[in-house]
Amino acid sequence: MASHAIVGVYRSHGFRRIETPALESLRLLVGSEGGENEKLIFKILKRGDDLETAVASGGGELADLGLRFDLTVPLARYYAENQARLPDPLKAIQIGPVWRAERPQKGRFRQFTQCDIDVVGVGGIVSEVELILATAEALARLGLAGLTVRVNDRRILGLIARHCGFGADRQSSFFIAFDKLDKIGHEGVLAELRESGHEATAVARFEALLPTLLDAQMSLSSLERALAPGADEEPGFRSLAAILGIVAPELPPGTRVTFDATLVRGMGYYTGSIFEIVSPAFPASIAGGGRYDRMVGRLLGRDVPACGFSIGFERLIAILGESGARPEAMARPAPAPARRIALLVDDDSGLPRALPAARVLREQGDLVSLELRRKNTRKQLDDLTTHGFSDFGIVEAGKSSATVKPLRQAG
Amino acid sequence: MASHAIVGVYRSHGFRRIETPALESLRLLVGSEGGENEKLIFKILKRGDDLETAVASGGGELADLGLRFDLTVPLARYYAENQARLPDPLKAIQIGPVWRAERPQKGRFRQFTQCDIDVVGVGGIVSEVELILATAEALARLGLAGLTVRVNDRRILGLIARHCGFGADRQSSFFIAFDKLDKIGHEGVLAELRESGHEATAVARFEALLPTLLDAQMSLSSLERALAPGADEEPGFRSLAAILGIVAPELPPGTRVTFDATLVRGMGYYTGSIFEIVSPAFPASIAGGGRYDRMVGRLLGRDVPACGFSIGFERLIAILGESGARPEAMARPAPAPARRIALLVDDDSGLPRALPAARVLREQGDLVSLELRRKNTRKQLDDLTTHGFSDFGIVEAGKSSATVKPLRQAG
Repeated sequence: MASHAIVGVYRSHGFRRIETPALESLRLLVGSEGGENEKLIFKILKRGDDLETAVASGGGELADLGLRFDLTVPLARYYAENQARLPDPLKAIQIGPVWRAERPQKGRFRQFTQCDIDVVGVGGIVSEVELILATAEALARLGLAGLTVRVNDRRILGLIARHCGFGADRQSSFFIAFDKLDKIGHEGVLAELRESGHEATAVARFEALLPTLLDAQMSLSSLERALAPGADEEPGFRSLAAILGIVAPELPPGTRVTFDATLVRGMGYYTGSIFEIVSPAFPASIAGGGRYDRMVGRLLGRDVPACGFSIGFERLIAILGESGARPEAMARPAPAPARRIALLVDDDSGLPRALPAARVLREQGDLVSLELRRKNTRKQLDDLTTHGFSDFGIVEAGKSSATVKPLRQAG
Repeated sequence: MASHAIVGVYRSHGFRRIETPALESLRLLVGSEGGENEKLIFKILKRGDDLETAVASGGGELADLGLRFDLTVPLARYYAENQARLPDPLKAIQIGPVWRAERPQKGRFRQFTQCDIDVVGVGGIVSEVELILATAEALARLGLAGLTVRVNDRRILGLIARHCGFGADRQSSFFIAFDKLDKIGHEGVLAELRESGHEATAVARFEALLPTLLDAQMSLSSLERALAPGADEEPGFRSLAAILGIVAPELPPGTRVTFDATLVRGMGYYTGSIFEIVSPAFPASIAGGGRYDRMVGRLLGRDVPACGFSIGFERLIAILGESGARPEAMARPAPAPARRIALLVDDDSGLPRALPAARVLREQGDLVSLELRRKNTRKQLDDLTTHGFSDFGIVEAGKSSATVKPLRQAG
């Protein structure tokens, strides 16, 4: 089955399976900045006396629980509640149903299954790199070809909004219209912006910028120039350039990564990088995700950086059915890993050397989790040992080869 | 993982995985004779105009959907809708969450996972025998010891009710009180019956019968005598005696089967045999099931016999955690079956010879599904070939040895 192959790849990258419940408090779901999905929540009627009170009071809330519309919001709640006993960072795999009250159509169901990986606790781009490479590898393992990873950054979208003159309070309305570019086209987006009461000068500046945004060949630097002055100080540009440079050479054959300034993603909770994977065989994205650094903080009172990537399972199955993917690759059993290796990198600059080393080890049957090295490395290794790692290596800065220096062996 | 080991055993008995959605129409769930569980349904608030209309009308139904409280009701709905394209009989495995709005306590959660097998389309006891043996084998494979399979029959319970003088319209109220024997004891049940307004003579006759029912050593025949005259014409006695006789010698070592006249099971939809599996390590049953021959008929307008057995996964995991079951047995990978064999039996009398033959074949790595032989055997073999069986055998009536006569080989 496809899910076994995917989970096998994710485990080899150091992610572990967790389960979160389907029902969450409605207050959590509605306050999650889930965008349009919040309008599609299946709400659970209160029970017993609570329901009677709500009905009697007329204007009372009739519902107290809701079915989750994604796996990200429940993960943030789970992390906020269980943080003390969880590994830091938490690298989680979730597979489970989510529900959205929309009309069923091809590729869209009232109940559908998502397969997510998330890294909670890391602010650096090592998370984005791992999430993108692991997801691309999982999809390639299933026999999918010609995949494109599209990446963008919410901070760059924010810069575009400011450049055009959309005020901070109008930004989410601007994003909602911009997100419809694929569906309603250039003119449709402009019409919606005008109808939504945005300032005419802002809409005109956006119209002038659109050809640049739509240019498929556009590079990050040409957008920076178009948005100058001040754009080169935007950290979204720096981190996106680093992600693109590090990910591109490590992708499976036939999979490519591109910057796409028109990628918005529907959820309001994203704070930085956003990404999705598209196949030429299917009109909608197969997988989508991004960074949501403030969601845990709203629950815990202290921000914890987080980033995730979600595969839509029904879409994946539809594409596999149409494309005739190789079943032998899907049925391959995942043997128990030879070693559980934590590979420490000093910072993002170590990734280009660490990634090929990790890939070689995984091909040998090892499980390899990339971890940012902390100041107190001894404590970090103790923690990793507690959470089941057996071997540790470090790829040191400045070395030209991908040699892994063994640090310690547990037990 | 435990679920893999269980599914491996179920597959080797010819069951196949299906999935049904979590949400069902509330009308279906409420009209399912699900007993006390119907009071615990999480109801989904209507949406949009439908909700506004319901709220405005005051007494309108606020909910239109509900979360399933078991996997049996959704299976019946699924079968009624898809019957034309499903194998006959359908031997289904389902693993999935169910929801009940009860206070969480040890072993009881708002959301929990059930693992069900069901046979839809067979009225004979071959279903009960397969369900009980496959479930007992799956639990034994996980390392559980000292298990007891308790069996009873709703028709025998009906006979007890009639013997005491509970009218047909009071029978379900009598069952609900009787079902609490484990929790509130002998006196508690009698008190509840009196408080519920049952006739004093009926309660007195039940009190007089209780020592017989409670006698752990009681045999089916002694109950028949106690309930005579007329009891020996009740088919529930005949089928239960046959199940006990056939199942007992085929159970895994350390697992036993007993008749228990006090076993009721909560759901109103049961029509014949009922059964559960208990462990000395846990107060509640690990698995429960029975025959529900009229549920599909209420949806399809034509009765289709059906029978199922459900493992409560959280309870199982709790017992495995406490008992220190052998993880090596759980981790054993299930190889692809060598052959997919349909083993035909002429009638129930063939089962005592067919079961050991099937067991030997499974131990060799074959998948073996027991099937009742139909008059048009050629058509039956064609249908089985369509649904993936490769080899066919028959255990002929009257032969003393367990020799399987090959009938045909597909392809």
